[in-house]
Amino acid sequence: MKTNPRRNPLGIAFVGGRTDRADHIRSNEDLLAAQYTPAARLLRLSGLDPVISAEGNLEWGSLADAADDAELVFLGLRDGRACFAPVPAAGSTAPANPALWQAMATLDGDELATYGAARAMVDWHARHRFCARCGQPTRLAKGGWQRNCTAETCRAEHFPRVDPVTIMLVEHDDRLLLGRQPRFPAGSYSALAGFVEPGEAIEEAVAREVLEEAGVVVRDVSYVGSQPWPFPSSLMIGCHAYADHPALTIDHTELEDARWFSRAEVEDAVQAIERGEGGQAFRSPPRTAVANALLRWWVER
Amino acid sequence: MKTNPRRNPLGIAFVGGRTDRADHIRSNEDLLAAQYTPAARLLRLSGLDPVISAEGNLEWGSLADAADDAELVFLGLRDGRACFAPVPAAGSTAPANPALWQAMATLDGDELATYGAARAMVDWHARHRFCARCGQPTRLAKGGWQRNCTAETCRAEHFPRVDPVTIMLVEHDDRLLLGRQPRFPAGSYSALAGFVEPGEAIEEAVAREVLEEAGVVVRDVSYVGSQPWPFPSSLMIGCHAYADHPALTIDHTELEDARWFSRAEVEDAVQAIERGEGGQAFRSPPRTAVANALLRWWVER
Repeated sequence: MKTNPRRNPLGIAFVGGRTDRADHIRSNEDLLAAQYTPAARLLRLSGLDPVISAEGNLEWGSLADAADDAELVFLGLRDGRACFAPVPAAGSTAPANPALWQAMATLDGDELATYGAARAMVDWHARHRFCARCGQPTRLAKGGWQRNCTAETCRAEHFPRVDPVTIMLVEHDDRLLLGRQPRFPAGSYSALAGFVEPGEAIEEAVAREVLEEAGVVVRDVSYVGSQPWPFPSSLMIGCHAYADHPALTIDHTELEDARWFSRAEVEDAVQAIERGEGGQAFRSPPRTAVANALLRWWVER
Repeated sequence: MKTNPRRNPLGIAFVGGRTDRADHIRSNEDLLAAQYTPAARLLRLSGLDPVISAEGNLEWGSLADAADDAELVFLGLRDGRACFAPVPAAGSTAPANPALWQAMATLDGDELATYGAARAMVDWHARHRFCARCGQPTRLAKGGWQRNCTAETCRAEHFPRVDPVTIMLVEHDDRLLLGRQPRFPAGSYSALAGFVEPGEAIEEAVAREVLEEAGVVVRDVSYVGSQPWPFPSSLMIGCHAYADHPALTIDHTELEDARWFSRAEVEDAVQAIERGEGGQAFRSPPRTAVANALLRWWVER
């Protein structure tokens, strides 16, 4: 995955797309209607997965490739051309499969960001065909940036969902606290993470998650960087915090293990994963994960 | 509104609540069931609005005050006692009314945060009684931190929604770019803001919004602070960015006006609003808004 240092200084995957979302078009019925032309491009998807060419690029077709009754999301303009993505029959039910990760590793930063945005959008549509307020069917509107309830008595408007998640490096005595979930590959450890809940600031969510999962009190939470994560549609908010006391009380319903790793161990792991290998002490998350960027940021700081 | 400087250094409203969300209780059926006792407290609400005592505090009753068929959200523990809030018949349809703002100004930081979290939660439940995937009824689960579809063929799980919003101070030549929407009180200007969309990092959303609304290109976006905003449930992500060129192209579908204000003008406005007055050049957002905290942060920096 190649990223653009100017658009994306921390080299975070799914960041740095060049698609112009063209809000002035999608919020204007006439301008939007004028985009459905033979010159418009349709992102090729297999369900929610990308179709990757032999050269390692996203494949695009034309609107003629879409089924007659397909719902289409207007992604915006790329090189001046309108781009759409088709809503599949079913939304996501499981995390992305390993073959998808492999395919995505070949995309450059712009294409990965384009795919991620498209996937999050079409997946949201596939999982929101009914109105949460009244139960009646909803219909795609504003080029896919809205769904409207079709019931005359309701007419609720629904908007694509983005779930903020905090993910944090906790530091004590030049060591980092990392944990592993049972579903992780063998030897893998990553930053602790959790959804921001209603009524919480980012800093409060960080403190609560670390206390819940590892029994550690943190201070001086700071923001490092963010990532849109399209499985299904999170905003990963990467943070750093300090702990004064390293004793751990692990919540084993959430984590299989959590441990403190030295700077040398972290440095070794992020270098090893570039070769597709585990490190001496643990296996780093891959480049696609924001946790990888956070670990590289900490090592290089 | 009094805030706790240790929990909330920028003095951001709705931050710094002392309620223990007690995840270990809400995720354990037996522990949760044991919380519905005569000692448990029920937040008194009038629809979605708080009921404020003559002393300016939130009013609490007991679970006996709830209707027999009321859905209750477990807010967590306060002073060791289980606290709940009742889901009203209808969710929010309009922004908060002026009387509510007045009442909220009397609450201290902890109580305002407690009310905000409760309001966002019960409002979400009131607006999500049906399954967005299949249209069938949903039922409150895990003390209100989840809703489950009741249809055997679906069984989708739904989680409270939090919408990340960027709100940003754009700086050029020691001046700040502020804008006003037609619905603002006369003379009021505030920081530009907009929802983070699927596929966007925080920094990308900031850049897109400022370009869309004011035609200004920004650089060096940095994070300042965040606020949970319960109307209905946003996570306000406060940022700062620089602009090299001050020329404005205002999107009048979004903004009535946007202008650059000098440091002296901003300082005057944030001092004036403490007396409930407008400043010489513009009226500042009130203490309850994160934009007020951002302006104070910039003046004091």
